Amino acid sequence: MRYLMRFSYDGSSFSGYQKQPNKRTIQGEIEKVLYQVNGNQPVSLVASGRTDAKVHAYNQSAHFDLQKTYDSKRLLHALNKMLPKDIYIRQLEVVPPEFHARFDVIKKQYCYKINLGEYNPLERAYVYQYGKNLAIEKMKEASNFLLGTHDFRSFTKQDEEKEDYRRTLYAITYEQQGSLLCISFCGSGFLRYMVRNLVGTLIEIGNGKRLPSSIPDILNAKDRSKAGMTAPPEGLYLQFVEYESEVC
Amino acid sequence: MRYLMRFSYDGSSFSGYQKQPNKRTIQGEIEKVLYQVNGNQPVSLVASGRTDAKVHAYNQSAHFDLQKTYDSKRLLHALNKMLPKDIYIRQLEVVPPEFHARFDVIKKQYCYKINLGEYNPLERAYVYQYGKNLAIEKMKEASNFLLGTHDFRSFTKQDEEKEDYRRTLYAITYEQQGSLLCISFCGSGFLRYMVRNLVGTLIEIGNGKRLPSSIPDILNAKDRSKAGMTAPPEGLYLQFVEYESEVC
Repeated sequence: MRYLMRFSYDGSSFSGYQKQPNKRTIQGEIEKVLYQVNGNQPVSLVASGRTDAKVHAYNQSAHFDLQKTYDSKRLLHALNKMLPKDIYIRQLEVVPPEFHARFDVIKKQYCYKINLGEYNPLERAYVYQYGKNLAIEKMKEASNFLLGTHDFRSFTKQDEEKEDYRRTLYAITYEQQGSLLCISFCGSGFLRYMVRNLVGTLIEIGNGKRLPSSIPDILNAKDRSKAGMTAPPEGLYLQFVEYESEVC
Repeated sequence: MRYLMRFSYDGSSFSGYQKQPNKRTIQGEIEKVLYQVNGNQPVSLVASGRTDAKVHAYNQSAHFDLQKTYDSKRLLHALNKMLPKDIYIRQLEVVPPEFHARFDVIKKQYCYKINLGEYNPLERAYVYQYGKNLAIEKMKEASNFLLGTHDFRSFTKQDEEKEDYRRTLYAITYEQQGSLLCISFCGSGFLRYMVRNLVGTLIEIGNGKRLPSSIPDILNAKDRSKAGMTAPPEGLYLQFVEYESEVC
């Protein structure tokens, strides 16, 4: 039986989502628990995508197969009891065997949190402590150049051997509450480091280091060195993964 | 020269404010840094009061004496560079030598954060994950009985050898944002565990275990066993300490 789960995690104490030998990872912790539930048979957890070390998720999604059929609600409670406190399963449902948590994604949303004010030790693992003001109107202007379908090679890891770097950004929205700025990115999918590289570049536009109109050139260059810095991981949250309504 | 500092900390990784041998404490970490600044001479940090293990502070205050005179702004920056990332000095000023960070307090404010909704792994060290609804109107009704000057013996540690258990509560306010409930307590001072015991009792009123009108009996009993549970430390924040305007 194939299950789809939606889960949240605090990325602070993990070496990222993906399983690695001798490291504490989100996939590793969940698969450990699924192994027990599955009568000590290994279970593969297939997520919508990885998140890097220290990156958080409000709503990551993944599928897995179990040998037996369980009541979803009871399975959800059992798994949450066994899981460490920094991972929490929010939803669990049975899906058709052909459902795939990565291939069937139609939209993904990330948000990035920036503290423009005084350093806050209480949020150091949850909000990028930038500590200065940003010209948000300029960042919005720059964001408009990013919307739509582009080759985002300038915003991902240079050495990645990918065939298709095109992705579609549907929306970039800004929300400010006091000194907390949240930038949300909704898109068809995201390349490795793409959100953090977009944020880093937008910050350099907000602090006057670059012009909003530099974005088309950065995109056209297809060269990572033309874009801005990689924003630190602690401000990044995977917010939502959307699948075709036919599937789930 | 006597200095008054205002500082914030993330209590998660400390065994409380007060120095203890072989334990990581807030006082211990700050005194370690002050020792270096003071030419390797010990410095005593005198705070407005202690906070327990895992309790946070947005604005704790403390005084200390240094042999030499420093520019407050430069000293603040130097100390913040030396301090661990979970402590941050927000303000530093020179005060008269007779100023005392504990004895001169005239008002203190604490807030307590409760999540009434679904468990959130990202806030497990910062918000009490209560996970159920509370009848806030009943809690407000109960709070009115707590305002004013009372003997708060029923809300503190039984074995404490104190002479005067009277404290004055000026205000208890409730703020709700989505599933996050913040209860703020403003008072002349607080006994050990007092806020957490008040919150625990108020929660038992909000969930129907006790009546709002039971508060006067609890106060009159002067018996810890008559009040409710001690709410967990992670939801508690020392928000502000006020001194007489003459002094600072």
